[in-house]
Amino acid sequence: MLIVMHHQATQEQIDQVIAAVIAMGLQAEPIPGSLRTAIGVLGNQGYVDDSTIRTLAGVRETIHVSKPYKLVSRDFHPVSTVVDVSGVRFGDGEKPVIIAGPCSVESEEQILEAAEQVKAAGAQMLRGGAFKPRTGPYSFQGLGLKGLKYLQQAGQASGLPVVTEVMRIEQLDTICQHADMLQVGARNMQNFDLLKEVGKTGHPVLLKRGMSATIEEFLAAAEYIVAEGNTQVVLCERGIRTFEKTTRNTLDLSVVPLIREMSHLPIIVDPSHATGKRMLVPIMSKAALVAGAHGVMVEVHPNPAGALCDGAQSLSGNDFAEFMKDIDRLYEFLGYSD
Amino acid sequence: MLIVMHHQATQEQIDQVIAAVIAMGLQAEPIPGSLRTAIGVLGNQGYVDDSTIRTLAGVRETIHVSKPYKLVSRDFHPVSTVVDVSGVRFGDGEKPVIIAGPCSVESEEQILEAAEQVKAAGAQMLRGGAFKPRTGPYSFQGLGLKGLKYLQQAGQASGLPVVTEVMRIEQLDTICQHADMLQVGARNMQNFDLLKEVGKTGHPVLLKRGMSATIEEFLAAAEYIVAEGNTQVVLCERGIRTFEKTTRNTLDLSVVPLIREMSHLPIIVDPSHATGKRMLVPIMSKAALVAGAHGVMVEVHPNPAGALCDGAQSLSGNDFAEFMKDIDRLYEFLGYSD
Amino acid sequence: MLIVMHHQATQEQIDQVIAAVIAMGLQAEPIPGSLRTAIGVLGNQGYVDDSTIRTLAGVRETIHVSKPYKLVSRDFHPVSTVVDVSGVRFGDGEKPVIIAGPCSVESEEQILEAAEQVKAAGAQMLRGGAFKPRTGPYSFQGLGLKGLKYLQQAGQASGLPVVTEVMRIEQLDTICQHADMLQVGARNMQNFDLLKEVGKTGHPVLLKRGMSATIEEFLAAAEYIVAEGNTQVVLCERGIRTFEKTTRNTLDLSVVPLIREMSHLPIIVDPSHATGKRMLVPIMSKAALVAGAHGVMVEVHPNPAGALCDGAQSLSGNDFAEFMKDIDRLYEFLGYSD
Amino acid sequence: MLIVMHHQATQEQIDQVIAAVIAMGLQAEPIPGSLRTAIGVLGNQGYVDDSTIRTLAGVRETIHVSKPYKLVSRDFHPVSTVVDVSGVRFGDGEKPVIIAGPCSVESEEQILEAAEQVKAAGAQMLRGGAFKPRTGPYSFQGLGLKGLKYLQQAGQASGLPVVTEVMRIEQLDTICQHADMLQVGARNMQNFDLLKEVGKTGHPVLLKRGMSATIEEFLAAAEYIVAEGNTQVVLCERGIRTFEKTTRNTLDLSVVPLIREMSHLPIIVDPSHATGKRMLVPIMSKAALVAGAHGVMVEVHPNPAGALCDGAQSLSGNDFAEFMKDIDRLYEFLGYSD
Repeated sequence: MLIVMHHQATQEQIDQVIAAVIAMGLQAEPIPGSLRTAIGVLGNQGYVDDSTIRTLAGVRETIHVSKPYKLVSRDFHPVSTVVDVSGVRFGDGEKPVIIAGPCSVESEEQILEAAEQVKAAGAQMLRGGAFKPRTGPYSFQGLGLKGLKYLQQAGQASGLPVVTEVMRIEQLDTICQHADMLQVGARNMQNFDLLKEVGKTGHPVLLKRGMSATIEEFLAAAEYIVAEGNTQVVLCERGIRTFEKTTRNTLDLSVVPLIREMSHLPIIVDPSHATGKRMLVPIMSKAALVAGAHGVMVEVHPNPAGALCDGAQSLSGNDFAEFMKDIDRLYEFLGYSD
Repeated sequence: MLIVMHHQATQEQIDQVIAAVIAMGLQAEPIPGSLRTAIGVLGNQGYVDDSTIRTLAGVRETIHVSKPYKLVSRDFHPVSTVVDVSGVRFGDGEKPVIIAGPCSVESEEQILEAAEQVKAAGAQMLRGGAFKPRTGPYSFQGLGLKGLKYLQQAGQASGLPVVTEVMRIEQLDTICQHADMLQVGARNMQNFDLLKEVGKTGHPVLLKRGMSATIEEFLAAAEYIVAEGNTQVVLCERGIRTFEKTTRNTLDLSVVPLIREMSHLPIIVDPSHATGKRMLVPIMSKAALVAGAHGVMVEVHPNPAGALCDGAQSLSGNDFAEFMKDIDRLYEFLGYSD
Repeated sequence: MLIVMHHQATQEQIDQVIAAVIAMGLQAEPIPGSLRTAIGVLGNQGYVDDSTIRTLAGVRETIHVSKPYKLVSRDFHPVSTVVDVSGVRFGDGEKPVIIAGPCSVESEEQILEAAEQVKAAGAQMLRGGAFKPRTGPYSFQGLGLKGLKYLQQAGQASGLPVVTEVMRIEQLDTICQHADMLQVGARNMQNFDLLKEVGKTGHPVLLKRGMSATIEEFLAAAEYIVAEGNTQVVLCERGIRTFEKTTRNTLDLSVVPLIREMSHLPIIVDPSHATGKRMLVPIMSKAALVAGAHGVMVEVHPNPAGALCDGAQSLSGNDFAEFMKDIDRLYEFLGYSD
Repeated sequence: MLIVMHHQATQEQIDQVIAAVIAMGLQAEPIPGSLRTAIGVLGNQGYVDDSTIRTLAGVRETIHVSKPYKLVSRDFHPVSTVVDVSGVRFGDGEKPVIIAGPCSVESEEQILEAAEQVKAAGAQMLRGGAFKPRTGPYSFQGLGLKGLKYLQQAGQASGLPVVTEVMRIEQLDTICQHADMLQVGARNMQNFDLLKEVGKTGHPVLLKRGMSATIEEFLAAAEYIVAEGNTQVVLCERGIRTFEKTTRNTLDLSVVPLIREMSHLPIIVDPSHATGKRMLVPIMSKAALVAGAHGVMVEVHPNPAGALCDGAQSLSGNDFAEFMKDIDRLYEFLGYSD
């Protein structure tokens, strides 16, 4: 950490800051400049909580050099993590994973049909929401436990591992029994108690980036899970909230190569929620894979026009089959053989 | 809802859309224009889920006229709600409420001293976090149940009702026993399961606006609580996330008069978290009250330089006493007598 | 400036960075830490262009301590600037200035009537656009030179100094002849050539904050004007662009006290453009003045329903007269006597 | 346009709105709903200025269906435009164009060397700034006319057409003489007078998206140029300003397929300014081309570590040669043969 003093800070104020740093068990190294003095803080093994320092007289600002995460950082763990979800593998050196399925499980027939369609087209995992986060209380909230069981059946029937969202801690045991991977949604990315409990399960996790989460906060959220001993975390970029409203969110594809450099965890992309527009999903999926994503998750519905949620961003089974042909060609270009 | 068709949409596509609207039990009113056709949707009693419609051929966009909330809307409930927290009242016609106290309960002595200081200066409620949401797992996470009990004691000793944050559903019973008001933090504003359970308690709630929540989403979150039968909800603006980083967040004061027009629920402002800078807290508190806030919540710590969290934005006891003298003068100007 | 090296940076890389700093005529002070090395850069008299350094091997990031402005900074010029516009004074110790008038000059009658109304109600300056920046080419673009002359006449008739926007350099001479103050609009805040030429005129300037300008960029834009020798610059907060669309922009009132601390230049607020809603203008004006603004600029139109631009955010003459009565009471409270 | 009335609007208010619409020469079609009345506006040939309407009593909001642009819209001009810059062609069916070169022209040698390098590697156009927009007045502002001449020489020597930024209207004639294409920078995207004059030249234009410009504003800016009779406009996405600061801006790649659908103008991507990080430039360029961009513009500098501006985001000549090999492979995959 660097402490920057005000232009007019007195020597006495500088000395007080130095004393405060030492009181924290750290070393202080003053750097007198032509215009102002800065004080380097040394000896910390990680992120320094600067609340105390920032309040001292004469301090203009503090600048962090260390980050609020460590276990997920490539700086400290250079070897890439591969996450294994019932045999489907996410990570460097693995063929990128295509997860597909409807926004919500709506009925036994719907999810079975979706599972068959996406399996036939070549998807490796099945998604489907049983417990749904919806902006308002009057929208369809999901089938709950019944939906979860239908999802599991559909997974078993098609031979695809399944991922579904967990919204509250009490659901964790049940979801771990029925699903191969737990999804923590964007709205819960900073639901820290949920993250800790998810960490304790040891179950593979798909952690979505919060709507207004910085990369640092995203990685710090993953750190909560890994700090509980669960390293099986796949990150997921799903668009951030900006002033631009033509798309549902703004897909921030640059984070893919950035996170690959900053962290050893795999990262995938969800172009369906990011863009909110069906026509953009195939093309942005391809862009994501070229940008280095370890997978994409796309919404597929047997009958998008009748979907109970997010129909506008869902591909039909036929759309998806077309899309997968393109993906096959792209994988060949990218050097992944079957 | 209005459905806007593409310029080149065919009559057949228009007819399909009309049929789909009718299938939803609603009426469709085509509005042929010089350049394109729009279709008005009539007969709905509230927000229409447009997923189905948006996917039909020839549809360019759908435009919502109704909102995803109703119970919290002043349109439907013109009479202002007054929220009563153990005798402290928030709402139109009531003197604005000053809530004060430290970010975290750190020890029995600290919270008792803070309570005495803020009571002596004229605050009407005491705040203090026992369970703390922190970006990274290595920051101080709060004293938990012990902190909650200290807070209750400090409230009783000073005669001030207390508010504290709830982070997980299992904590609800305990917190309801020890605190007069439940706070739902910004990071949990769309933790819909928590909102529903908070709604079932019937306990007064302080609902903070999410970091990137629109006004519509903010009110829809309140609707989750009220829909469970709990009308005792105070809204709290605490700054939104923008590109500007000189302040911790961007305090969006215009929402105060806007929400007073759109909703019958009271709204207060938290300038400490919004700005993150102690020097801005008193002046922005006054601006908030002039803008019509039903209260402000400010961080006060007996010793900000030693605070375990958010020291940089906390007032000392002396700062707060000075601040309250200003507030007294302002209240006189605004026409609130003691 | 501080240069932060990568965790695995070699001593050779560190030495190269030190050599590069020295080659720039500055001093380098290595600060070895437990996890990584940082290098303090000393000896600079202002902002350091770090392009060279950031590209060297082993460098993780550079952190600026100095700012891209100096002449406008209170750090270096502690005495507040008072800007005098034909006798109307903006700045510390002066009564805040109310500027009022229509968005656009639409006709001789309209601006004369507006001038009379705002003068009668107590405004100190008249605004009115002759050259208008409009998002699309098919909206009313202003009356041009004719409008400018009408504005000058209205100013002379009412005894109010006038301010109007300049959009291109060739207009500068003419506008300086007809108007007491030049406005640089939000869309031109980083039109650096215009800023330089405005600086050369020596004419008082109202510089509006760009829609997505940080405080640092806002002050750096003012620096362009002051660096040409023109210190008569009034800053104007007019809302920033965020995800929230219920208001036209998000009024960032916290910048008022912040800029008063960071700069010696006066700062006013434009609540009409910030909010885009007439009902919010009076209340947010009062909040701005309580937050320390040196003035407010509000849109007033004799007949808002017939306005050619921004009618929805304009007060009528009667609205404005009511508003000014409130302002009088507020000024008394704030300690400004006539 | 749709006019939405308040829930409690009276019949008299509705009648007034209808009268106002008719007074504008348009037709009004009331759509009575269960909860409120809406009024469809028909008969307009384009964007309706709603200032008058929005101010009438009882009006809650107006919703635009038409857009503030028409000439650039694919709705009205379905055939794609191909822009020809001295033989280099941008647009559908053309091989995507690689523009490369330094941020600034720094010397005759530097730009000649850069031109040779990028030509040898396969670039089709040369970029280089002679007049530079810089946040603060103390950064390098470009070589001006001298730089422009060096750029032209380098273009002629290498056989590459050149593009350079225009910052003020007086420079237009000169730049048209020396450069094949005019660039309007992000900071000037809403400098409407500059846009109009650029439109009058008839010279090919590269129009960069403003930092906080919506897609609608971006296309409306292009409309200013095309409305003057100049259809030779290439759009350029260069990142938008968001809360995320790890990258210089947030590259919004989804606009590429969106704009290809909404407009007939070609669109390219500038990953150097969007990301600000050299390591991201090659990979995000490829992602952009897969997303459908008609070209990319990348910064290349013979010696990035010594660059006077933006060295951190510039590729070296060798980096660029490597990059172009990848691009060749990608073009083959995408079906562009030489």
